[in-house]
Amino acid sequence: MASLFSEGDPVLLVYNKRHRWIKTVIDDLFHCNYGSVNLGELIDAPYGTSLESSKGKFLHAFPPTIIDWINVAFKHQSQIIYEKDAGMILMMLDVKPGDTIYETGTGSGSLTSILARSVGPTGKIITHDNREQAIEAAKYNLSLLSLDNVEFNHRDIVEDGFVEGNADALVLDMGDPWRVIDHATKILSPGRKIVVFLPTFDQLGKTKDQLEIWNFKDIKAIELLEREIQMKKGAIRPSTRMIGHTGFLLSAIYMGPKLSLET
Amino acid sequence: MASLFSEGDPVLLVYNKRHRWIKTVIDDLFHCNYGSVNLGELIDAPYGTSLESSKGKFLHAFPPTIIDWINVAFKHQSQIIYEKDAGMILMMLDVKPGDTIYETGTGSGSLTSILARSVGPTGKIITHDNREQAIEAAKYNLSLLSLDNVEFNHRDIVEDGFVEGNADALVLDMGDPWRVIDHATKILSPGRKIVVFLPTFDQLGKTKDQLEIWNFKDIKAIELLEREIQMKKGAIRPSTRMIGHTGFLLSAIYMGPKLSLET
Amino acid sequence: MASLFSEGDPVLLVYNKRHRWIKTVIDDLFHCNYGSVNLGELIDAPYGTSLESSKGKFLHAFPPTIIDWINVAFKHQSQIIYEKDAGMILMMLDVKPGDTIYETGTGSGSLTSILARSVGPTGKIITHDNREQAIEAAKYNLSLLSLDNVEFNHRDIVEDGFVEGNADALVLDMGDPWRVIDHATKILSPGRKIVVFLPTFDQLGKTKDQLEIWNFKDIKAIELLEREIQMKKGAIRPSTRMIGHTGFLLSAIYMGPKLSLET
Amino acid sequence: MASLFSEGDPVLLVYNKRHRWIKTVIDDLFHCNYGSVNLGELIDAPYGTSLESSKGKFLHAFPPTIIDWINVAFKHQSQIIYEKDAGMILMMLDVKPGDTIYETGTGSGSLTSILARSVGPTGKIITHDNREQAIEAAKYNLSLLSLDNVEFNHRDIVEDGFVEGNADALVLDMGDPWRVIDHATKILSPGRKIVVFLPTFDQLGKTKDQLEIWNFKDIKAIELLEREIQMKKGAIRPSTRMIGHTGFLLSAIYMGPKLSLET
Repeated sequence: MASLFSEGDPVLLVYNKRHRWIKTVIDDLFHCNYGSVNLGELIDAPYGTSLESSKGKFLHAFPPTIIDWINVAFKHQSQIIYEKDAGMILMMLDVKPGDTIYETGTGSGSLTSILARSVGPTGKIITHDNREQAIEAAKYNLSLLSLDNVEFNHRDIVEDGFVEGNADALVLDMGDPWRVIDHATKILSPGRKIVVFLPTFDQLGKTKDQLEIWNFKDIKAIELLEREIQMKKGAIRPSTRMIGHTGFLLSAIYMGPKLSLET
Repeated sequence: MASLFSEGDPVLLVYNKRHRWIKTVIDDLFHCNYGSVNLGELIDAPYGTSLESSKGKFLHAFPPTIIDWINVAFKHQSQIIYEKDAGMILMMLDVKPGDTIYETGTGSGSLTSILARSVGPTGKIITHDNREQAIEAAKYNLSLLSLDNVEFNHRDIVEDGFVEGNADALVLDMGDPWRVIDHATKILSPGRKIVVFLPTFDQLGKTKDQLEIWNFKDIKAIELLEREIQMKKGAIRPSTRMIGHTGFLLSAIYMGPKLSLET
Repeated sequence: MASLFSEGDPVLLVYNKRHRWIKTVIDDLFHCNYGSVNLGELIDAPYGTSLESSKGKFLHAFPPTIIDWINVAFKHQSQIIYEKDAGMILMMLDVKPGDTIYETGTGSGSLTSILARSVGPTGKIITHDNREQAIEAAKYNLSLLSLDNVEFNHRDIVEDGFVEGNADALVLDMGDPWRVIDHATKILSPGRKIVVFLPTFDQLGKTKDQLEIWNFKDIKAIELLEREIQMKKGAIRPSTRMIGHTGFLLSAIYMGPKLSLET
Repeated sequence: MASLFSEGDPVLLVYNKRHRWIKTVIDDLFHCNYGSVNLGELIDAPYGTSLESSKGKFLHAFPPTIIDWINVAFKHQSQIIYEKDAGMILMMLDVKPGDTIYETGTGSGSLTSILARSVGPTGKIITHDNREQAIEAAKYNLSLLSLDNVEFNHRDIVEDGFVEGNADALVLDMGDPWRVIDHATKILSPGRKIVVFLPTFDQLGKTKDQLEIWNFKDIKAIELLEREIQMKKGAIRPSTRMIGHTGFLLSAIYMGPKLSLET
């Protein structure tokens, strides 16, 4: 049972693992090193259709995932987020359709786009970055996905705080997150969660100290190690090389200005 | 800035880390070992309000997260899913509002509830289990969250296959997933993804072999190790004990009955 | 082909995993909950002999390994060293028969005994501890193994430095190792290595700073994670629980008072 | 306090991390890209002496460690052993001065040399390999270290078994170790240990099955993950990249032909 492409849909064209493009299903030619194909042939064609190019090569057509968008089409101004970390952030922040999530920094918009997709059209992402270039790149990237539930703010949070509002959750991905914890208390309702992504132990200690000062509780830091398993038949084994570290995820719950928990 | 509770809202009452309850905001008494409180006081009260009990103890009131629901209120028939694995499954399957996700087995409904929340009211979860008891427990658990976008099927997938339909993605969490891969091809459009959660290497090998036979590609297996960091001031260090293994996540993309990728 | 026990040899008696004893092969009765056996029967008997007790149970007789000694017979004043860390320390310090190794603190003598065995009768371990009780316990423990190549020093290294001498290598296992790095330079020849075992990141940073100040090079920190694999037939998988952290191993080479390396 | 070089000693000459040589202290010139130095200047000079080259560069002179020998001077026919694994093997096999250790395969002799150094002049390594080339390379490599306690056997263990003798311990590092477990029982006394190094789960399962058949007990498999910590000041963090897998270490104790343990 196959879903069909419609005119105007985005399409992921796959030649092999390294050669992939995201294009629009429209009556137009697409040229690459492997020849040219007419994208109009995909109108009303099933997902998974393969197009034969002018050079006799085949390009396979799929609907792109959010990770395809990020890896294939995004301009990257900065380190992108790993799937393992993005997924854990969704869980830690209890992200759901309709939520309003605050974020800083925007970076290239990778995590922003994942959050925006997860909160859906009834939700909203309020993102901040103090680098104009990052904001511009992220705006471009998000526009590719036709996600219009993101509010971009070119703003120095350390100096000026977050834009006013009421956040269901807050995620910090910046070099000195401990300097904005006081501002975080202005936008978080009690009971709401913060997640901070940070790569070093020094950042972990400083941020944890500020979280305690500002009455956050359930402060917990973890890291996720992703290990790939090679599956050659009769020789299943963990891969020789792996990513040893991306960053720590520090989470906490805001208790409001006065509360403290029995322990 | 604090959000307010309304009558009929669920509320997480927290005494300490181990003593937590989920109740309804309604003009009624709640009794526990720490005394009784009137839940009616929470109507129009801000998140984070603390209620003083008849014994002079304080219970703090927060909106429950999905993980709170699973840990505090669910009846557990089977192993629950870990946050790290659930988050990664959301990313691997590209889950978004509006999706139709197929699942088997239902188990206690932990992953079902996370998926149901993520696809939102415009999406749907079609879940299957061959154990009547699991279905009943999951129905009860899901009813607590007022999630009504889940279709439960008491069904033996190995014998009878999945209920008819068109899945945006499929997740398998069962003992012998290799026995349903052929059925999976009937509900997955080409380009759609499958994720299989399995704890042993033997299952990994058998399932991977079947995925290859049925023309799934991009077959990849990973596992996530979660490491907690203790943050005692001046003595930051990884925790002495950790969970060493939950399961592997095997993902693949269905290519349709005939396709094959250049590599 | 079986080796034989001689009178006076130590013998490990094994009933099961948790019930093990180290005794001497001598014409005498040994009593335990499982009955009594005559150890004299082991004289000239092969390794692996099983003795039937007065209660009809069997105790199996083996030569004890150094790890058996530490786990079964030692009095423990402090945390014992893990095999993974002890083995890595042997490699990092290039320990070999004939070496003179300096150590502080002595603790319960677990690492001391492993080092003493590795340097053999032609080598020497010079160990220091500022706690009299630790020294006494370690002396008792080491006497069990008949290792007489250990010199015990009840001494406060921070205040008084190491005893004079020329170390082939130095291992530090103490709470504030950064306070003895200056003293370390007095006993280490240039080209000799130091290994510091420490559990926290704060200790790591402070010790590394001191090593740089005192002209140590090739400063490197690692940790070893040990993962056990369960091998139930047809269900091979990593164990659910594991030790998440014991400590970091910080190693460096002393360059002498003036040297610096091109990089 | 500095030890002195004597004529005929081996010396590690270090220009930087990547440019290192092992030479002999003798009245002779050594030429490299950084100029030439007279090695005779090292006679009676302290460890750590730096020699100025004809081009005004400095080479620093240290006594080589066993790991320096393996990394700098050995010809490598095959994968070398990692320090973490070699150290753990020493512990698991209870290696000590005077032991007789059996080994197959010899490979490039890396592990052989570590074992030979650890058992010292009173011990012996009996190593076997079915590849003549490996034996020749290992002989060359071991001759560099002047270790003369190794007996090399060019022999197919699967067909012909081990050379006769009485092993204190046995280490297997070969592709199909399950095919030599029966032969292992001929050289191991009861109570002696075997360690098998193998990279895949399939090998693990097959070897474990044979160990059970031949009455080995305490069968245990582990793997060691080595994680490096970067120590840039104020930014301490695990390294981004790491080795994800070298191999598993399967250990067991031989119980003799008839014994079985209560459990």
